Amino acid sequence: MLRNTDRLEIFSDGVIAIAITLLVLDIRVPSAKDGQLFHELGSYWPTYVAYVLSFAVIGIIWVAHHSMFEHIEAVDRGLLFTNLFLLLGVAFVPFPTSLLAEYVHVGGSNAHAAAAVYSATMTMIGLAFTAIWYHLARHPELLSGDADAANLRRSIRRSLVSPVVYGLTIGLAFVSPPACLVVYGLIAAYLAGGPSSRALVAKPLAAMRAAATGQRPPRPTRAADPDPSPDPLP
Amino acid sequence: MLRNTDRLEIFSDGVIAIAITLLVLDIRVPSAKDGQLFHELGSYWPTYVAYVLSFAVIGIIWVAHHSMFEHIEAVDRGLLFTNLFLLLGVAFVPFPTSLLAEYVHVGGSNAHAAAAVYSATMTMIGLAFTAIWYHLARHPELLSGDADAANLRRSIRRSLVSPVVYGLTIGLAFVSPPACLVVYGLIAAYLAGGPSSRALVAKPLAAMRAAATGQRPPRPTRAADPDPSPDPLP
Amino acid sequence: MLRNTDRLEIFSDGVIAIAITLLVLDIRVPSAKDGQLFHELGSYWPTYVAYVLSFAVIGIIWVAHHSMFEHIEAVDRGLLFTNLFLLLGVAFVPFPTSLLAEYVHVGGSNAHAAAAVYSATMTMIGLAFTAIWYHLARHPELLSGDADAANLRRSIRRSLVSPVVYGLTIGLAFVSPPACLVVYGLIAAYLAGGPSSRALVAKPLAAMRAAATGQRPPRPTRAADPDPSPDPLP
Amino acid sequence: MLRNTDRLEIFSDGVIAIAITLLVLDIRVPSAKDGQLFHELGSYWPTYVAYVLSFAVIGIIWVAHHSMFEHIEAVDRGLLFTNLFLLLGVAFVPFPTSLLAEYVHVGGSNAHAAAAVYSATMTMIGLAFTAIWYHLARHPELLSGDADAANLRRSIRRSLVSPVVYGLTIGLAFVSPPACLVVYGLIAAYLAGGPSSRALVAKPLAAMRAAATGQRPPRPTRAADPDPSPDPLP
Repeated sequence: MLRNTDRLEIFSDGVIAIAITLLVLDIRVPSAKDGQLFHELGSYWPTYVAYVLSFAVIGIIWVAHHSMFEHIEAVDRGLLFTNLFLLLGVAFVPFPTSLLAEYVHVGGSNAHAAAAVYSATMTMIGLAFTAIWYHLARHPELLSGDADAANLRRSIRRSLVSPVVYGLTIGLAFVSPPACLVVYGLIAAYLAGGPSSRALVAKPLAAMRAAATGQRPPRPTRAADPDPSPDPLP
Repeated sequence: MLRNTDRLEIFSDGVIAIAITLLVLDIRVPSAKDGQLFHELGSYWPTYVAYVLSFAVIGIIWVAHHSMFEHIEAVDRGLLFTNLFLLLGVAFVPFPTSLLAEYVHVGGSNAHAAAAVYSATMTMIGLAFTAIWYHLARHPELLSGDADAANLRRSIRRSLVSPVVYGLTIGLAFVSPPACLVVYGLIAAYLAGGPSSRALVAKPLAAMRAAATGQRPPRPTRAADPDPSPDPLP
Repeated sequence: MLRNTDRLEIFSDGVIAIAITLLVLDIRVPSAKDGQLFHELGSYWPTYVAYVLSFAVIGIIWVAHHSMFEHIEAVDRGLLFTNLFLLLGVAFVPFPTSLLAEYVHVGGSNAHAAAAVYSATMTMIGLAFTAIWYHLARHPELLSGDADAANLRRSIRRSLVSPVVYGLTIGLAFVSPPACLVVYGLIAAYLAGGPSSRALVAKPLAAMRAAATGQRPPRPTRAADPDPSPDPLP
Repeated sequence: MLRNTDRLEIFSDGVIAIAITLLVLDIRVPSAKDGQLFHELGSYWPTYVAYVLSFAVIGIIWVAHHSMFEHIEAVDRGLLFTNLFLLLGVAFVPFPTSLLAEYVHVGGSNAHAAAAVYSATMTMIGLAFTAIWYHLARHPELLSGDADAANLRRSIRRSLVSPVVYGLTIGLAFVSPPACLVVYGLIAAYLAGGPSSRALVAKPLAAMRAAATGQRPPRPTRAADPDPSPDPLP
């Protein structure tokens, strides 16, 4: 008897929360000779880098998912299955993370293949977001009233940035896996500052301000608040 | 103090979300000689097929479970324990998935046994759904007002399709495990397009349309909306 | 901003759902010679028995926890930490389950120790429930209005049944581990039919009936409904 | 369509519940010769100590997180990402727990390194809490009306206790890992009795009392209720 979008969000949050927490299972306790544990732990730096990268990516996916569902008021079959496709990608992330950590640690030409698999996974996840936005653009009856056609087209275009850039890193993987790690970090930083997380917070803050204006005097800190102007759609 | 069906749905969603996400733990990082990683990864194709199949099946189970609970307004002991029986089956899925992946990869006559165990698990899960529908038919006081006896009988009959077909694949397992994989995929495709996912989305959309008619002019896309006419019960 | 008991229930449900689903990780894919998979799987029967027993026990714990929180309206520090102690026990269950499965499979005198550890874990969980009831009896301001002192004393006494019986199986473990498995099953069956699951469903059904009486004519099946009269507290 | 803080709390609860439950995966079934299982299990005491310590710490983190969100009414990007940073730390806990258990069991100088890594992880988690409080102090528009500047400064100061003490145990790790275990336990006991858990329960109880005063006569137990006076902010 929970509402449709509520249960879809709770289920999606469950899968995303589990995937992000399972990442730690790839960090194995090394067997080290006496006095060698710090050295041994240090040699596994690709594992920690991969852990933080994937944690950041999944965290950003959660923010983007959350932000998207701010605009969704009903669920249809297409949304259900494009969302499941997205979750398939997110739940898969621990595997390429583990692969990347292992073969960047081992080195050699297998590191190229591992980075390519990681890039391909992220490309697929990005395309799943595009597929959901495209489906929403064709079924605007699923959205709340504040979505218009121009905003939806903009959301589709924006959702292509991430799969295109991740797609290019598939090529980069065959040149330099460490360069891939750097680019992955840059993508994460870009997306963390992107419109999804802006839109997510804009509405509630705006609502609070409207409420505050009517009900109590503005607080001093509000005037200096440097929040960016919200995009209507992420 | 959460409502009964709410907490049952949240708990069920938790188990289903965890089971679907644990599937990835069966995809192990292979140890490959330098330059052999792509080749090595490719040899594990049964693992990826099994992963996608089981992900799809559990996703469909979630949709069917959700769809069923749209009609349920109260919980009794029988519903509690038939639902736990269903969750026992869902939580078990990672094991036969792993078994199937391993022994289709290894080949030989053990692949027959592995496919048979997978088919038997899915048959059990299907029967758990039948048991729940049967219990609901005997206790219609648990359902919301829009359920009638004819619909309930139809739901019981429909819920038998999946265990009967999966049951037949137990026999097929001893003929050809790869043929089983194909049939599993066909069952998933059939169920994904089946009445459960149709019913799930029909009600909220209908409600939205009713609300829209009264409150704002219809949007252009609505006229061309090819949504199927909803079944009252999945 | 979620209500106190809501968030405590959601967190508890999360831990219980994860623990019940992690049980499957103890069921390992055996390595079998060609044609030996069924035989090999069969030799692991203690694993399946332990899986089903622990799944049933955790399922019953969820029902009892849910049932208890039907009566709780506020949370204090004592409730918070006795509940965490309960969750510590529940989250631990996969370990003794695995231990029991392994050493009943291996046989020998270690099976005695494994069964004793399993029994001790269940005894602790039972005592955690007693501790929570005892705390509630001393702080009735946490409960909703329908709880009275006599009912609370009865709940404490009832909550002692399970730890006392499980405690006795610690002794039985040193006589016969297979007998322990049988007794564990009997305890689960007793608890599944016990007052917790009765109380859980009694209130909503009663509420529905009251509502139905006022709003629509009784349905035919209702007259023959064999539901037991509800206990006010489990 | 779930409210912002609701979904942030549900996601955070999910990650915390999963991390606390995954701890059990570090407790492996030992292989013991016949009759040696109790002895073998006993030799793994650091595993059980580490399990209980980390379970307690994560439980306390959950209480502190919950308590903090009692005061939060809106989410901005800074809160989103400082909260993700906190979850990164919590989700990581199973690794240093496993490391600590393994190398205190093995002994030797590696136990120093393992305890230092554990202490450093806890220090980071403590600093994540400080970062969130600091962010809230700079953006009081995110908080509900009952938070004032003096309380926020007090909350920041208090949130520094835990990272400072854990930070000192990084040094202690190089002197005596067992002493670290003792100090970890003392910190957990201190935090369990600290202002977070007090604040958490004070508001609902106070609300209940106010409601009770207006609606029904006070119960006998209420007069003797030894609850501490609540702090407005944890």
